[in-house]
Amino acid sequence: MTQRFLIKIEYDGAPFVGWQRQANGISVQQVIEEAATQLCGHTIHVKGAGRTDSGVHATGQVAHLDLPKKFDENRVTEALNSLIGNWPVTVLQARTVEENIDARFSATGRQYLYRILAQRTPPALALGRVWHHRQPLDPAAMQLAANRLIGKHDFTSFRASQCQADSAIRTLDELRIDAVGAEIHLHVAARSFLHHQVRNITGTLALVGTGKWSANDVSTALAARDRSAAGPTAPAEGLYLSHVSYADIKWA
Amino acid sequence: MTQRFLIKIEYDGAPFVGWQRQANGISVQQVIEEAATQLCGHTIHVKGAGRTDSGVHATGQVAHLDLPKKFDENRVTEALNSLIGNWPVTVLQARTVEENIDARFSATGRQYLYRILAQRTPPALALGRVWHHRQPLDPAAMQLAANRLIGKHDFTSFRASQCQADSAIRTLDELRIDAVGAEIHLHVAARSFLHHQVRNITGTLALVGTGKWSANDVSTALAARDRSAAGPTAPAEGLYLSHVSYADIKWA
Repeated sequence: MTQRFLIKIEYDGAPFVGWQRQANGISVQQVIEEAATQLCGHTIHVKGAGRTDSGVHATGQVAHLDLPKKFDENRVTEALNSLIGNWPVTVLQARTVEENIDARFSATGRQYLYRILAQRTPPALALGRVWHHRQPLDPAAMQLAANRLIGKHDFTSFRASQCQADSAIRTLDELRIDAVGAEIHLHVAARSFLHHQVRNITGTLALVGTGKWSANDVSTALAARDRSAAGPTAPAEGLYLSHVSYADIKWA
Repeated sequence: MTQRFLIKIEYDGAPFVGWQRQANGISVQQVIEEAATQLCGHTIHVKGAGRTDSGVHATGQVAHLDLPKKFDENRVTEALNSLIGNWPVTVLQARTVEENIDARFSATGRQYLYRILAQRTPPALALGRVWHHRQPLDPAAMQLAANRLIGKHDFTSFRASQCQADSAIRTLDELRIDAVGAEIHLHVAARSFLHHQVRNITGTLALVGTGKWSANDVSTALAARDRSAAGPTAPAEGLYLSHVSYADIKWA
């Protein structure tokens, strides 16, 4: 008899090959699966809501796993964190859910944060946590261009060539640009995203922020349905998976 | 002919033995001196405003150094950052000053930030950047106790046994406790500080935050003029030297 749990997870993506297990290095999934396997004494599989790339961080990744009935939510959180040890991965909370809830397929929305440090001098404390962009950026110009991407569109121009989704049509519910000190923060929300979609949008809006591109150039790139028509892919290290939504799941 | 510069510096204290050169590891001072020496082709000495301990961070450390006249402020900033390379140390700004200005002795005030993460689960992204305090803390109780320490006092109870200052009398101009999400931030300002003074104050106020100590207990500890009467030393990793003030120096 097992109980399904959803767990909310924070991690520093820097030391990992990404969320998903890979042959060429340590993944966040592997770290959590090994902790859960050690806890239970038999192999436990963990499935995440989003497959973050190598170097991408999370403050609100969600995953599901099935554990023996005897564990309660607090025990799962405490035991996994203890067994994860010194890896920069923390289980923030655990919730018991029905066994038909799937971290990936039951998710009703996902939110990302992208942090750009727009200053000439490099980051020290934020090294590996932001995209260091040496040219200044105009957040108001970026917001006007971002508004062209909000809503339902064919995002072919903003998907990675290796993206495996059947359709490139997605609905951006939010794309908000905030200036926070020397940083520009992009808050992006949708039911689901294409591979590299947030990083490709960010790289394109940065061209607008420096004045190289106009909002009309962004509309033209979107309409082209051709990856080469949009801007470059912003680096992984500025991206954070910040929230995954589910119907009827309440976190503390 | 040389020109004296003040430089404002940010660093992650984790990989360093502290600000000051030591035989047993790499210091921030050494990293900057080696960059400046490489820039000039002869040995350059760098003197800091405060000798931060091993693991302590800075967002506004200040130091002075004398460089050949040919360098301007922007060139100094750019060249030092380029030569510092991958160390998590950044020169944020440089200012030309009169040659009688000394980073340590001309400073008219210093500000520190202490970050406590008060939650059961450990930090992931903030690992090494906060004191992880598993018990909840009451910031209002901490502020009431902190008020007992503001002003001019003999801080013998809050100085490290190895502190070399002639007098333990210091004037705390500010000791403000802010709750910021799951973190408690202590903002502390004075003309100068005793060795470990901020960390010993923090460790003591945390006893108040958990309810073990009252504000009166803090007054009693202060009056005792005995290090063993106050609370433990909070860990280095939560401490940030955030600002050093000088008369007539304007940063950008």
